Amino acid sequence: MPRPETDIAATRTRIMDAAEEIIREKGAISFTMTDLATAVGMSPSNLYRFFESKDALAEAMAGEWFAELEIIMEELVSAEMPVEDKLYQFFAKRLLVKRARYADDPGLFESYMELGDEHFEVIKGYVDLADHYMATILAEAMEKGYFSGLELDIVVSLVNTMMQPFCNPTLMMQMMHLATEERLALVINTILNGLHAPDERAIIKPDLHIAR
Amino acid sequence: MPRPETDIAATRTRIMDAAEEIIREKGAISFTMTDLATAVGMSPSNLYRFFESKDALAEAMAGEWFAELEIIMEELVSAEMPVEDKLYQFFAKRLLVKRARYADDPGLFESYMELGDEHFEVIKGYVDLADHYMATILAEAMEKGYFSGLELDIVVSLVNTMMQPFCNPTLMMQMMHLATEERLALVINTILNGLHAPDERAIIKPDLHIAR
Repeated sequence: MPRPETDIAATRTRIMDAAEEIIREKGAISFTMTDLATAVGMSPSNLYRFFESKDALAEAMAGEWFAELEIIMEELVSAEMPVEDKLYQFFAKRLLVKRARYADDPGLFESYMELGDEHFEVIKGYVDLADHYMATILAEAMEKGYFSGLELDIVVSLVNTMMQPFCNPTLMMQMMHLATEERLALVINTILNGLHAPDERAIIKPDLHIAR
Repeated sequence: MPRPETDIAATRTRIMDAAEEIIREKGAISFTMTDLATAVGMSPSNLYRFFESKDALAEAMAGEWFAELEIIMEELVSAEMPVEDKLYQFFAKRLLVKRARYADDPGLFESYMELGDEHFEVIKGYVDLADHYMATILAEAMEKGYFSGLELDIVVSLVNTMMQPFCNPTLMMQMMHLATEERLALVINTILNGLHAPDERAIIKPDLHIAR
């Protein structure tokens, strides 16, 4: 006789698979817990024993989505390798995972993005965690002399800004053909070579007058 | 008695104003030429005398949207100023225009983006024109020694990639607070200082092995 916690985990997985099937077919916006109950042949009240709300379901699905990406980031942060390679791989490895998922099923990928937009409070924690890991790598780069004269916060924010097409999945869907490893390497080189506070090497002064 | 062409232009303007009012209230996706005819108190067949299709209407509205941006780009390309300032202002001036429009009416801004997505073939020409102007400025920068070892095409594409939060209006809506002139100046400096072909200064080699 299987232990009860195994039954519960198996049923939760079956429900999440059914939810994925629904968003694959209809997109994330419109589906309800009642639709999902019908799909898994449960009463809504029984379904709510496994997921107390659509938010709770979205949270579990986000956990599955981010699990592989979190392992990549965690391993890289503590890996023994030059910080330059670490920064490159931080983006390259996750890019490969996301690109493979997109290639596998573009519609499902888009539906997961919709689900994330609908439940942004749920994925906010994962976005913050990715920023935290990136900040750890960028701080290591600063110890090595990169980004001179800039605070870590602004470096994190500027790197995020310039890296959007390589890490923002919604933008990646539009620019997938441009987000190649070769271009990524050129952009990482550009950031490491060129990002520092305005000094004698500054080409544009931030106070430059702009008339409309 | 007003000349007929003036009447026609005035009626077209009135129709476009009414269309803007509709997309402001309801978004761009759902409105039809029949809704628009009702809003301006015309029969649909009379409306079609002024705009032969919703595409033709979208084209005229896109023309209005891009007119100010085109003047900025055209003036800058032929302006007498250092190419570094030109590149900065190419993005800064358009950023200010778009930011002001967004601040003025965020919902309408979003509806124009929807309209553009719906009629992408119409705005494709404007996007290509902006790329052409940018390429002209980047070619001028290459003559001055920037972006050494890279072809113009890849420079255009990489600059577009890194500048997305400063020029892609859909992304700007999400990142408006980050797209400041100061950050723009830092990013332009980063690109001018750091973007060149892999050489002895290259930090990451593009052929770096990436294991999933």
